[in-house]
Amino acid sequence: MIVVLKSGTPIDEITRVSEELRETWGVTVEKSVGEHKVVLGLIGDTATLDKMQIQNSSPWIEQVLRVEKPFKRVSREFHHGEASEVVVSTPNGPISFGEHHPIVLTAGPCSVEGEEMIVETAKRVKAAGAHFLRGGAYKPRSSPYAFQGYGESALDLLAAAREATGLGIITELMDAADLPVLARTADIIQIGARNMQNFSLLKKVGAQDKPVLLKRGMSATIDEWLMAAEYLLAAGNPNVILCERGIRTFDAKYARNTLDLSVIPVLRTLTHLPIMIDPSHGTGKSEYVPPMALAAIAAGTDALMIEVHPNPAKALSDGPQSLTPEKFDRLVQEMSVLGKVVGRWSEERTLVASV
Amino acid sequence: MIVVLKSGTPIDEITRVSEELRETWGVTVEKSVGEHKVVLGLIGDTATLDKMQIQNSSPWIEQVLRVEKPFKRVSREFHHGEASEVVVSTPNGPISFGEHHPIVLTAGPCSVEGEEMIVETAKRVKAAGAHFLRGGAYKPRSSPYAFQGYGESALDLLAAAREATGLGIITELMDAADLPVLARTADIIQIGARNMQNFSLLKKVGAQDKPVLLKRGMSATIDEWLMAAEYLLAAGNPNVILCERGIRTFDAKYARNTLDLSVIPVLRTLTHLPIMIDPSHGTGKSEYVPPMALAAIAAGTDALMIEVHPNPAKALSDGPQSLTPEKFDRLVQEMSVLGKVVGRWSEERTLVASV
Amino acid sequence: MIVVLKSGTPIDEITRVSEELRETWGVTVEKSVGEHKVVLGLIGDTATLDKMQIQNSSPWIEQVLRVEKPFKRVSREFHHGEASEVVVSTPNGPISFGEHHPIVLTAGPCSVEGEEMIVETAKRVKAAGAHFLRGGAYKPRSSPYAFQGYGESALDLLAAAREATGLGIITELMDAADLPVLARTADIIQIGARNMQNFSLLKKVGAQDKPVLLKRGMSATIDEWLMAAEYLLAAGNPNVILCERGIRTFDAKYARNTLDLSVIPVLRTLTHLPIMIDPSHGTGKSEYVPPMALAAIAAGTDALMIEVHPNPAKALSDGPQSLTPEKFDRLVQEMSVLGKVVGRWSEERTLVASV
Amino acid sequence: MIVVLKSGTPIDEITRVSEELRETWGVTVEKSVGEHKVVLGLIGDTATLDKMQIQNSSPWIEQVLRVEKPFKRVSREFHHGEASEVVVSTPNGPISFGEHHPIVLTAGPCSVEGEEMIVETAKRVKAAGAHFLRGGAYKPRSSPYAFQGYGESALDLLAAAREATGLGIITELMDAADLPVLARTADIIQIGARNMQNFSLLKKVGAQDKPVLLKRGMSATIDEWLMAAEYLLAAGNPNVILCERGIRTFDAKYARNTLDLSVIPVLRTLTHLPIMIDPSHGTGKSEYVPPMALAAIAAGTDALMIEVHPNPAKALSDGPQSLTPEKFDRLVQEMSVLGKVVGRWSEERTLVASV
Repeated sequence: MIVVLKSGTPIDEITRVSEELRETWGVTVEKSVGEHKVVLGLIGDTATLDKMQIQNSSPWIEQVLRVEKPFKRVSREFHHGEASEVVVSTPNGPISFGEHHPIVLTAGPCSVEGEEMIVETAKRVKAAGAHFLRGGAYKPRSSPYAFQGYGESALDLLAAAREATGLGIITELMDAADLPVLARTADIIQIGARNMQNFSLLKKVGAQDKPVLLKRGMSATIDEWLMAAEYLLAAGNPNVILCERGIRTFDAKYARNTLDLSVIPVLRTLTHLPIMIDPSHGTGKSEYVPPMALAAIAAGTDALMIEVHPNPAKALSDGPQSLTPEKFDRLVQEMSVLGKVVGRWSEERTLVASV
Repeated sequence: MIVVLKSGTPIDEITRVSEELRETWGVTVEKSVGEHKVVLGLIGDTATLDKMQIQNSSPWIEQVLRVEKPFKRVSREFHHGEASEVVVSTPNGPISFGEHHPIVLTAGPCSVEGEEMIVETAKRVKAAGAHFLRGGAYKPRSSPYAFQGYGESALDLLAAAREATGLGIITELMDAADLPVLARTADIIQIGARNMQNFSLLKKVGAQDKPVLLKRGMSATIDEWLMAAEYLLAAGNPNVILCERGIRTFDAKYARNTLDLSVIPVLRTLTHLPIMIDPSHGTGKSEYVPPMALAAIAAGTDALMIEVHPNPAKALSDGPQSLTPEKFDRLVQEMSVLGKVVGRWSEERTLVASV
Repeated sequence: MIVVLKSGTPIDEITRVSEELRETWGVTVEKSVGEHKVVLGLIGDTATLDKMQIQNSSPWIEQVLRVEKPFKRVSREFHHGEASEVVVSTPNGPISFGEHHPIVLTAGPCSVEGEEMIVETAKRVKAAGAHFLRGGAYKPRSSPYAFQGYGESALDLLAAAREATGLGIITELMDAADLPVLARTADIIQIGARNMQNFSLLKKVGAQDKPVLLKRGMSATIDEWLMAAEYLLAAGNPNVILCERGIRTFDAKYARNTLDLSVIPVLRTLTHLPIMIDPSHGTGKSEYVPPMALAAIAAGTDALMIEVHPNPAKALSDGPQSLTPEKFDRLVQEMSVLGKVVGRWSEERTLVASV
Repeated sequence: MIVVLKSGTPIDEITRVSEELRETWGVTVEKSVGEHKVVLGLIGDTATLDKMQIQNSSPWIEQVLRVEKPFKRVSREFHHGEASEVVVSTPNGPISFGEHHPIVLTAGPCSVEGEEMIVETAKRVKAAGAHFLRGGAYKPRSSPYAFQGYGESALDLLAAAREATGLGIITELMDAADLPVLARTADIIQIGARNMQNFSLLKKVGAQDKPVLLKRGMSATIDEWLMAAEYLLAAGNPNVILCERGIRTFDAKYARNTLDLSVIPVLRTLTHLPIMIDPSHGTGKSEYVPPMALAAIAAGTDALMIEVHPNPAKALSDGPQSLTPEKFDRLVQEMSVLGKVVGRWSEERTLVASV
């Protein structure tokens, strides 16, 4: 249930209404302040709530809406119909993800493989225009015998790359036990596709402060994905970015997954959360990455995550889908042209890069 | 098997080599003339052919390649690695589909519902910049009780719209028995998703001259789709355009299908045939169409098919996915900006439209 | 809409009510006579029909039901909640398919490859206990270069096998033009998975008398499959058997398709039509066929279709999924044990076989 | 790589060969003792191993095989081609899961909802013939607002039910932090479909002693599932049972998931691990459960898991797919008939039940 207040509602009245709702109906009340409107989201057993009775509890109430969708806090209505922004601090300054901000670029290797490798890659992708460095310390691998990531020591190398370039760090958390050490280095904590419905992990990550990148599960419906995000918001963390990385369909011969770009317009109408697209995992082949990255921009994505490796042929994981730094340079050039056309590109990134 | 001839090979030698291959090995030989190279495609039981022996049969043979893929004539190698173009005559002049041509726009209603309706729609989409009018005379419907299209009389109305606007006509063939009458009006014959593996129909449509638009089956793999196209080429018709219209996945709640834009880079490497994207069927909802149409352009499509209906709420079929003419106007505006950025937009269309 | 008449309703009253419904409401009325009840199915624009007014039109009307499902004639309600039976004449006598009949066995090769081959196979599968011989004359193949079946001459060979064994013949129709010649030999006409939504073909096959085996499309939903059957019944042919042959999912590495046995209980509640299971196409590997055939019997199938080839390794198509006659013998033994336990096995088949 | 030793190889030679392999090639060597053969499995970087050199290292070596599959310890070859058995102690005595043992029955509610409820259900399913009680203490729910299970207190109630009936307990672990407390009550630890690729959890559960039931992920391929099991075995726990619970396909309208029974013959050839089928989650509707349970027995399953709830209409979760105790009684009757026919039913269960 959502209670929309008239513009100009005095703060005291907002507080009074919130408390009355809480006491009368036994629900949790969440306030969301938009540019022009204040909205109160009611969470709990709202099936029995009486719309008219609530409507009549204050002359400042403009409208009472029942949310039919299973997700509440992530729904667009709960955020007064507007997009939210997720602001992430990085050594280079705060970076904002959201519909009304320039496209944010994340790039880097699948796995952190060594200090020189990660620091050099960081420098290259920063010079090209990236804002965040991605790199896996803990790697979810189908086989227990495959390289599992260098773990904690890889986090130190990411910290070194962060210091050397000022880029924010995005890295995946697989085990809640690693959260404290990972959170020291990561500016954004990634939850991978395989853990999208690892609800225990979601609750723990939702209960801490670092922004979270929530990848879509391989065969997660839009509703399931948003409900997974709802776990994070329900646990207290509003800073969630949704990342599409390709779904599993009947044909994996050429593209490893099917990158579902229609999530961009679909999510826009359902949720206020920012959207990132990962064409590298989404296609599994480096030559398919540039056209799909450009398509994501044309479709309105808020951010992109692209795998870049100094020597893809020798990568310890996901080599075939990684761009070389040179190819990434060229792709950023192409993206910038398109990004400017759609009004979502900031020149500042190159300024920062040239410092 | 493909025999690449050196540039400058004399015509007589090409003929001699072709005949020798035919006689010695019992294969069919198809000649494909590119800008710089001539390529001979060998079709038949090529497993037993001896590469070295063929190589030595003429000093003009540059290279002998074995094609591992199941498709031959549609494969890029068979067309000396270059894109082919499909040129379609329309009253407004010939329109070329292909990688090195401006993006071709097709628009119109799902079904032809009346003369005024189809002629007016044709005028509107032409004015906006479309080159082809789509409109169903025979409609494949899940239910035998649903509107099945007005059939032959709808073809007459399409002919009237063609005459009124000069637009080319694309309409679907469901039954080979309708081919003669349909071919009188259609400039491009559409084979729908449900008939993609109706091999009897493919053979008959492949044996006539009109260009063919081959929609991808709902759960057709890329290989199956290309093999269906191979049926058309094998039957003698080289003028085939491939149209992605969304595949069936596990989630149809918001977008009815999953538009698989990665086919664009995937097909580019596999085939020389032109590519069309249909974001209307691909998403099933008009509000998702513009972002996906723009994404298709950014990803490099050669053509687009977009449903436009003067009054979507009253459409006899597929109303929810149809744009109004006004929304189509706006979308073409946006597409033209992007199309120019990627160098695939011709201003000529507006000139033609304003005549 | 369904009108259930009280038991004992006089024939004249049934006729009167039917005519009144037809005249008053402009609907088609179909009578279905069950053991105890007569049911009138109303087809047409039934949305505007007034339930009460119909109820009051005769004291013999027990109940008026609105059918919410998109399929009418195939729905269980339309057949007064009971299973229908499809009786097929064969030289060996009539064979009944249906929930209250013994399991019907169909066996034979994917393609007819020669007279001796098909006649010998027919004798072997008859001796083992089969009632029908399957064998393809027209083969839908992904590649235009693959063996397409021997066509009309294969039909002659099937006729010879029929004469030699008395088995009924099931063979696939791909092109309506072949219907007259195919119907001379076939006792049941098969519509293959790829043509399940070839609505033109369905209309033509529905308009003739031979029973039809309708295979489920590779990614057809239950509703789409039943609607395809509805096309056949709506065109006048009530003798339709539904055949599950495996659906396309995300994993085809071991089993080529995913045999969806849950269709058995699902279809039972939705439709009155008999159900056949094809574990050969359903799994694509001969070693998986016996356990899935047995599972189908346990789940309640009415019929089975199993590929048997005298020499699977040399089969022109689908060798890997074909049983040898010896393995088929053993499987029928196992099936008979299970079939007796579930009360769906007739000893008569062995009597017939030993003649 | 697998080293098969001749029958009669002396123990000392086995030890010598194992050590030599370890030292020379740097691999881990696992010994598996079958009825007639001893097999040494080599794990590690085996790509560079020289088959001939290994063959020549002892006259007792019968054969050296390269395993092409990505899974090693779970592969049938690694277990000298034979099925393994998983023996689980319960208060009623040890219960063996495996191809050569009677079918094991697990039954109980989705969630533990109260002491009386769970103890009564346990008594009912034991009386019917079940060996294990299933019941969720920690529930993975799509929504953070849905009932999440009673957690630790539910474990106490399961312990009470165990004491009252002697049934073994199967319950799901979602969070490694709960492992110590859960392992006190559970006789088998269940890893749910959503955590099948939660590799951190798998490593921890693999490192403890309780047998593990590993459910297949909703869209997990057979290979991914076996690799997840490989994580458990690689961590030291050989007592793993694989449980199919339905996969996600394109049609969820009637059956919620598609129960993939072909995994039974597929897994038999690939792995030695026992197989369980869960037709309750596999179909999502109680009326579909009995036919699919019977089908699973006919296809050769080693165990079944069936949801039983005293009052499905009031269940806190998954009511629609739960059988009443009465329906479960009837189903066990039917299963026993089939189970005897296939030689996989022990009368002992009723004896135990009647004590």
